[in-house]
Amino acid sequence: MTEDDLLASIREIVSVDDPRVALGVGDDAAVLDGGVVVSVDAQVEGSHFRRGWLSLEDVGWRGTVAALSDLAAMGATAEAVISSVVIAEASDALGVMRGAAQAAHAHGAVVVGGNVARGDTLSLHTTVIGRARTPWTRSGARVGDAVYVTGPLGSAALGWRLLERGDDGGPFVERWRRPRARFDLRGAIAPTACIDLSDGLALDLGRLCRAGAVGAVLEEAAIPTEPGLAAAAAAIGEDAAALSLGGGEDYELAFTMPASLDPAIAVRVGEVVEGAGVRIRARDGTLRDAVGGHQHF
Amino acid sequence: MTEDDLLASIREIVSVDDPRVALGVGDDAAVLDGGVVVSVDAQVEGSHFRRGWLSLEDVGWRGTVAALSDLAAMGATAEAVISSVVIAEASDALGVMRGAAQAAHAHGAVVVGGNVARGDTLSLHTTVIGRARTPWTRSGARVGDAVYVTGPLGSAALGWRLLERGDDGGPFVERWRRPRARFDLRGAIAPTACIDLSDGLALDLGRLCRAGAVGAVLEEAAIPTEPGLAAAAAAIGEDAAALSLGGGEDYELAFTMPASLDPAIAVRVGEVVEGAGVRIRARDGTLRDAVGGHQHF
Repeated sequence: MTEDDLLASIREIVSVDDPRVALGVGDDAAVLDGGVVVSVDAQVEGSHFRRGWLSLEDVGWRGTVAALSDLAAMGATAEAVISSVVIAEASDALGVMRGAAQAAHAHGAVVVGGNVARGDTLSLHTTVIGRARTPWTRSGARVGDAVYVTGPLGSAALGWRLLERGDDGGPFVERWRRPRARFDLRGAIAPTACIDLSDGLALDLGRLCRAGAVGAVLEEAAIPTEPGLAAAAAAIGEDAAALSLGGGEDYELAFTMPASLDPAIAVRVGEVVEGAGVRIRARDGTLRDAVGGHQHF
Repeated sequence: MTEDDLLASIREIVSVDDPRVALGVGDDAAVLDGGVVVSVDAQVEGSHFRRGWLSLEDVGWRGTVAALSDLAAMGATAEAVISSVVIAEASDALGVMRGAAQAAHAHGAVVVGGNVARGDTLSLHTTVIGRARTPWTRSGARVGDAVYVTGPLGSAALGWRLLERGDDGGPFVERWRRPRARFDLRGAIAPTACIDLSDGLALDLGRLCRAGAVGAVLEEAAIPTEPGLAAAAAAIGEDAAALSLGGGEDYELAFTMPASLDPAIAVRVGEVVEGAGVRIRARDGTLRDAVGGHQHF
């Protein structure tokens, strides 16, 4: 069962027709009456990170940003953060909460609730609440729209691979450890559809396409990466193109809108087309299916 | 470090003065701008339950009601439930989500968000959102107010003890497995202070007293219990009085207000007095400190 299959089954279980819910399970976040936007994300030791890779504050920061990014993808403000921590030593929860409070503050939000439970496996469950008058969704992409991304991709994935090899310093590790959510695009763009890149461009853009019943073609040469990514990736035998297409956790946004944007705001990486699925045009002009990305199950 | 000490430290870390937060960490729930009331609660295998004691649906139900009860204690409606599940087998998350959806529905709410992560220890983290024009808080108890509880106490605690002994049927086990949150009191009472009894009357009323800088005296003979509790408790060597004073997870409410209520609505169990702490007057007239209750750390 893939993550998407699982979420589809959950959607079936919980789906109800209720006037208080403008948008239920299935997008980056749900929308309640009055433009209240809500989402949840979890970070579990062993599954999302290893203990040696992150300080307790880092765990709080990362988990909080991962959740906040879903609000950014909805075009919402960040308002409130609620953090539920499972941890072996009660007093260690304070470090996690400190990181969560820092991340909330850095994105204009406030931690308003917390819970601490004892357990051997550290995990952090972060619910975020924001507001949006007209939330962006995944589902509005139209054939002919341009596909944009808001920043360099693959950095966090490279950071993860460096950590796996015991190399725990440098800018790529830092991008993985202390990501930022892109609330700064709010007001500057008017997307027809938007999604955050938590699981990688190929997989998340595929979700956006499926929600809009369209396809997309990416231009490999256009996908932005941080300076030095290619060399640092090559040095450990990784392919930069695969990292930028399949690597998740950069928490940039991908969105579609009629082509018109100042390239300083976002980078055009492709086009919405009829059909289904995401394909990518290599530098030599050949077209292939875009694969890769993080399936949690 | 007790749970209350830990929460006090967390409160210090996250506390900010923000006009969007009417009431932050420290009460049963936080209150955001516009009367949006938010709370979170967690159920962790091994800490809050054992796997053999609950079906997956029961886990979802219990965890959801435990969280919803905090909204009931604020005098809020139940509107939205967001569930984050950690579970070894992805497909097992569906059972938990089914129980969560049932509990949400039974209390007038809707599951609007979910997350599933893989982990060996089952846990469910439930954030709940409701609305209240004038939320009840813990802090308004006044000397001379009566102390009320909304129903029989000690049943869930007896259920837990029966399960520990391998006896997994009967009404007390069912009260522990499938609790209900008391939203039905909304509109019928106007408390000066209110708290939900998740950790037991002695401990939770103590919190209410501390928040209001008052004390309380309970009348042991007045504390309501379910018919049959005393006999069933005695049969396994447990003290019914201790269970009803210290046993948690009944999810009844304790509240204070000037004495005037129809006894059919809530049971008067004591009085708010000057000073600090909770004392209890035994049937023989002697006064002692009320002790017991579940400290999670």
